[in-house]
Amino acid sequence: TGSRRKRARARHKPCALKELEVSVSELGLGYESDETVLFRYCSGTCEAAVRSYDLSLKSMRSRRKIKKEKVRARPCCRPLAYDDDVSFLDAYNRYYTVNELSAKECGCV
Amino acid sequence: TGSRRKRARARHKPCALKELEVSVSELGLGYESDETVLFRYCSGTCEAAVRSYDLSLKSMRSRRKIKKEKVRARPCCRPLAYDDDVSFLDAYNRYYTVNELSAKECGCV
Repeated sequence: TGSRRKRARARHKPCALKELEVSVSELGLGYESDETVLFRYCSGTCEAAVRSYDLSLKSMRSRRKIKKEKVRARPCCRPLAYDDDVSFLDAYNRYYTVNELSAKECGCV
Repeated sequence: TGSRRKRARARHKPCALKELEVSVSELGLGYESDETVLFRYCSGTCEAAVRSYDLSLKSMRSRRKIKKEKVRARPCCRPLAYDDDVSFLDAYNRYYTVNELSAKECGCV
């Protein structure tokens, strides 16, 4: 049906930068503050970014040449750079600065 | 027992560059050749590399502020750079060059 196709399409969008306006409390970092911040994050798939490295790593794993190791044989949609630090006053008038909170640029790594 | 602890330790090694000497055929890229190549890959965990970004992304997902999207809320142990191209003669005396095959440097991205 249309909605299932729409949901499927949502799952297969290429890796890209997206943004949400949220309150500092909603960041889930333990701060209490109604101040709002722009939270930018990386979302989407990296299907087009598969390299020979990924194919060979998968092959080594399936041939048990690599065993019981934590390896990632697919690219990750992740930040390549982060926005500047974010500062805010919490509900108790204390000043905080958080770094590497919001993504500036995304890529398939 | 010792071996279980040893296996557990193997699983929790920090992200690092490792290497294997393999034949081109074992790369699983469809080439047939007995020539050997050095295959370097990234293996290990990124537990120490968690940023505010990851904590907030997890929080947004669990609060359903981000739904039905492919996001990665943990760093990936992946190549930051790749070795130079690899060239070889296959079993039929044809010459091939493969790029982005072997990792040169690893990191938690």
